[in-house]
Amino acid sequence: MFEIGEKASKIPDCIRFDSGGTNFHVDFIISECIKGFKTKKTLKLEFGLEDLRKEIAKKERKNGKNIDYKNVLITNGVMGGMYLVSSSILNRDDKIIANKACFEGYKWIADCCGAELKQVDLSDIQKIKSEINPQKTKLIYFTNPDNPTGKIYKEKEMREIADIAKDNNLLIISDEVFNEILYDNRKYISIYKFAPENTIIVNSFSKNYFMSGLRIGYLIAPQYIIEPLSRHLVAMTGAVNTFGQYCALCILRMKNKNLKQYKQYKNELEKRRNSCAQKCEEMGWEMQKIEAGYSAFPDIKMDGEKFMEKLLEHGVAVIPGKVFGKDNK
Amino acid sequence: MFEIGEKASKIPDCIRFDSGGTNFHVDFIISECIKGFKTKKTLKLEFGLEDLRKEIAKKERKNGKNIDYKNVLITNGVMGGMYLVSSSILNRDDKIIANKACFEGYKWIADCCGAELKQVDLSDIQKIKSEINPQKTKLIYFTNPDNPTGKIYKEKEMREIADIAKDNNLLIISDEVFNEILYDNRKYISIYKFAPENTIIVNSFSKNYFMSGLRIGYLIAPQYIIEPLSRHLVAMTGAVNTFGQYCALCILRMKNKNLKQYKQYKNELEKRRNSCAQKCEEMGWEMQKIEAGYSAFPDIKMDGEKFMEKLLEHGVAVIPGKVFGKDNK
Repeated sequence: MFEIGEKASKIPDCIRFDSGGTNFHVDFIISECIKGFKTKKTLKLEFGLEDLRKEIAKKERKNGKNIDYKNVLITNGVMGGMYLVSSSILNRDDKIIANKACFEGYKWIADCCGAELKQVDLSDIQKIKSEINPQKTKLIYFTNPDNPTGKIYKEKEMREIADIAKDNNLLIISDEVFNEILYDNRKYISIYKFAPENTIIVNSFSKNYFMSGLRIGYLIAPQYIIEPLSRHLVAMTGAVNTFGQYCALCILRMKNKNLKQYKQYKNELEKRRNSCAQKCEEMGWEMQKIEAGYSAFPDIKMDGEKFMEKLLEHGVAVIPGKVFGKDNK
Repeated sequence: MFEIGEKASKIPDCIRFDSGGTNFHVDFIISECIKGFKTKKTLKLEFGLEDLRKEIAKKERKNGKNIDYKNVLITNGVMGGMYLVSSSILNRDDKIIANKACFEGYKWIADCCGAELKQVDLSDIQKIKSEINPQKTKLIYFTNPDNPTGKIYKEKEMREIADIAKDNNLLIISDEVFNEILYDNRKYISIYKFAPENTIIVNSFSKNYFMSGLRIGYLIAPQYIIEPLSRHLVAMTGAVNTFGQYCALCILRMKNKNLKQYKQYKNELEKRRNSCAQKCEEMGWEMQKIEAGYSAFPDIKMDGEKFMEKLLEHGVAVIPGKVFGKDNK
């Protein structure tokens, strides 16, 4: 993925579909954040700004999660949260279950922990069960809305995965970074509902609020887990950057004021989603229309890498399916 | 350390000597950073802003280090750099050597890596040698200028430590966060000079530029180490926050413009250092006058914890010596 990004960055005006960002301007957010930040006199280390944790708890309670701000830990983005939990829990040669196609970063985390990422179709309960090693399997990385397929899991599917987690004493890390970018008036339900004691939610401001360089993520976990995780976080990076935390707080507090702008961006994304699906159909490419997020994962019926190279020559950067796991075209 | 900080944060107008910060206003820096940042249209993920790496390389070359920007990796503060290197190198039960009194965070990192921190007087070469376990000892955490003693190591001492590292195939992590806060017109030399192939330098903008909430650090290492470390960094936190990187770049580029302000702050620190040393003497407390940084580490000839509790009642927060290692009073 980095190699593609590096090539793409050297092509003037390259159209970038290789990394999960948008080309949306976020000036209106940044200038408001800055207004708030100017009044601070010194830049202090904040080990998880309490006000920010409270705003996040409020937001997540609206999504039906029975939590308090003490269940919230601010992390260095979602990767920071996932690495934190994974490296705290995993021993060498442990196994993690993830979807058949999943974000490449999951594998990087697994590699760093000396663990193995087992990619399996998470809609196929029998396949998940057959992959579980009672001694070694510790975690399920569950991405909902899914990346890159843009699928939203059904309640029945989540209930079954939740049951597997409870029966096998597994922890689910529920990556919900696209849970506010939903199309066709869909509603979002977290797997937390079906296994609150076995679920750690990770989320961030990168995708839902288009602030990917901010590196502010958070995780939601039972309170007895937050304390050791926060110690580990301090050892890993000292603290999470103060400016980003104030920005995130500002975003949540000012959300209502900016609703029109966010709505416009979401409409724009939905338009892009529709035109992308239509083009894929015209090309004879099979693709489940995405229900959330901003990816597209068509079966292009040819070699993904060659196609990628070809597109790059025309100034368009995409990533081949195998980046999401070796079984993907 | 956190318990003290938590107590102190609840005391109105508490005078804080417990964490390594100043009460200096950094508005003049932040507003310049913001001016630069406003012109950015989108907030992008930057995996180590190339311009920032170049400015850092330039600065470090002035300090006599023979390096290129490709030797520089931007990290999540110094803790982020030290954890990154330590967790990449250490196996369970490995040993790290650090000074008799050292920053508590070193122990947190060691704990996270399942390694043991061996604290020994780094001015005593025989003691260092006797602590080395040829199979298990992998790292030396070398803090220069030292924290909390404020000592600057002499060339002879550094040469001896460098030789030990070379002879025993150890890596030195040289923590240089106070290397621009020097008193009595002292000059700074890095241990890198005596063991360039065995040294990884870590530094940040928190202490030298009073920007402790920015979480921008960097490490300097041989190029063949940078590549795997940068992969590990991405797995750990995705990337380092963009705003902070632009701030850091701005600080280095604007340094000349702000020299007067920095000089004033340094003079203020020197004044505080002198008055602190005088007061300690008046109290009959022994203390080596600090040569750099902004700590004070007197032998108060009484129980550190009781003294701390007493001072806290009067709205002054300090930390007892044992926080820096069990052999300190």
